[in-house]
Amino acid sequence: MNKYRTGFQGELGAFSEMAVQAYFGDAAEPVPHGWFDDVFRAVDEGRCDYGMLPIENTLAGSIHVNYDLMQEHDQQIVGEIVLRIVHNLMAKPGVRPEELRRVQSHPKALEQCVRFFREHPSLKPETVYDTGGAAKMLGEGEDRDIGVIASTRAAERYGLEILEHGIEDNVQNYTRFLVLGREPEPPVGERLKTSIVFSMPHEPGTLFKAMSVFALRDISINKIESRPLVGSPWEYLFYLDFEGHADSLLCKRALNHLQEIATNFKLLGSYAEGSIVDRV
Amino acid sequence: MNKYRTGFQGELGAFSEMAVQAYFGDAAEPVPHGWFDDVFRAVDEGRCDYGMLPIENTLAGSIHVNYDLMQEHDQQIVGEIVLRIVHNLMAKPGVRPEELRRVQSHPKALEQCVRFFREHPSLKPETVYDTGGAAKMLGEGEDRDIGVIASTRAAERYGLEILEHGIEDNVQNYTRFLVLGREPEPPVGERLKTSIVFSMPHEPGTLFKAMSVFALRDISINKIESRPLVGSPWEYLFYLDFEGHADSLLCKRALNHLQEIATNFKLLGSYAEGSIVDRV
Repeated sequence: MNKYRTGFQGELGAFSEMAVQAYFGDAAEPVPHGWFDDVFRAVDEGRCDYGMLPIENTLAGSIHVNYDLMQEHDQQIVGEIVLRIVHNLMAKPGVRPEELRRVQSHPKALEQCVRFFREHPSLKPETVYDTGGAAKMLGEGEDRDIGVIASTRAAERYGLEILEHGIEDNVQNYTRFLVLGREPEPPVGERLKTSIVFSMPHEPGTLFKAMSVFALRDISINKIESRPLVGSPWEYLFYLDFEGHADSLLCKRALNHLQEIATNFKLLGSYAEGSIVDRV
Repeated sequence: MNKYRTGFQGELGAFSEMAVQAYFGDAAEPVPHGWFDDVFRAVDEGRCDYGMLPIENTLAGSIHVNYDLMQEHDQQIVGEIVLRIVHNLMAKPGVRPEELRRVQSHPKALEQCVRFFREHPSLKPETVYDTGGAAKMLGEGEDRDIGVIASTRAAERYGLEILEHGIEDNVQNYTRFLVLGREPEPPVGERLKTSIVFSMPHEPGTLFKAMSVFALRDISINKIESRPLVGSPWEYLFYLDFEGHADSLLCKRALNHLQEIATNFKLLGSYAEGSIVDRV
């Protein structure tokens, strides 16, 4: 069976690769890329079937650049998955914790383990471009004084030993990933969601009117976020997720109604609500 | 005159230091800190008068962790400033662009200069914990094959020469910074803003009701963002900025009305709308 080639940003062992595995299981072949934009290009050009892109993290917020890339590349959201981000301290096998002097990871991961560094003042945090990349470099080298903060998957993949599991400050650390494809796909699942982006004049009451479109039809909103457009103080951009499929009669009516009010509107996709992967 | 000791995260030369200078001019002494949390502690303990914290970037989104820290430390927003983020390529004085092999910066900065790296495939991006830190290291060393992406301020401070100005992909790159203090302060300015955080049951129409509180009183909303609370699917957290001072009669009524609907509510502060600093 041909596997779905699924692009992600980062090295093998990155959290995005875990998301590919959690979503597709064995049906996908994860394909690492350097930049988010490379993933979109690979899908555009047919080198990948899907892209797996982080869109928001409960601590770090939304990744607007991926919203921009979705619009620029005109791709469709066809699925989602929410992954608990667990940071683990790992080292070369046999290394004792007291041998470590430096701990490498992506700065976002380091930032999320401040308590750990406060409790271990002798460990110097060092930044690397990617959690998976940090694990890869350590796995390929012989350094016994370097630890890495990364996923369990990275430890497996690069033959590292986990010294401490779950060293993140806040366990409410989840990343929501979107599965992007070239074409819309009929979603499989009970709970469907739709993501849109629209802009509105910046006047009192416009957002209230936009919300009325959904409230009057008892459609639940899952996410709303205004995006500041600096230099365009008279216009606002909104990202919105709501329950239901854009093709259902109720949602179709709501979206038609919204387009009476909005200055710009784009459907990003309808898809099944993703499961939350807690045990990683 | 005693200067306001103003804490920020990063090394001298970081964009946060530019924000301190842009906001306070010569009235402040910028005080570098390792983590965001260190800045909050310094303000709590009186070692700093103010903290200057990034809260959202037009490309990277909101920094939820700073919202969390604001609530945890019970500090007040007393001001804001919006800074255009311009990324510059710099090197040791006299170095020619063709001598460079590696370019160091914070991964967020590298990510925002993808086009530059595509046009210069011989340059290897390397991550460092901070744009200012990258400039500092280069300034202290002698490497002629290393370039750094950082602010004009970092170039000045560490004696580096700017080889190319404004190499970011997207000029719509602004960071909004908040000035935090221990106590509320009477805002000075014509346009006042208020920031709040509240939570609501996750039911159809609740957000509509919350928006009505402002729309019915012609109060403009500047920002809204829902924050997913994973594991609490029945409750949603919202960050909201609106025009006006919380102590004005109109806003006071709106906030009383909101508290009839919201399950939790916290005022983060009323302050003068910040200026947008474009020329950096």
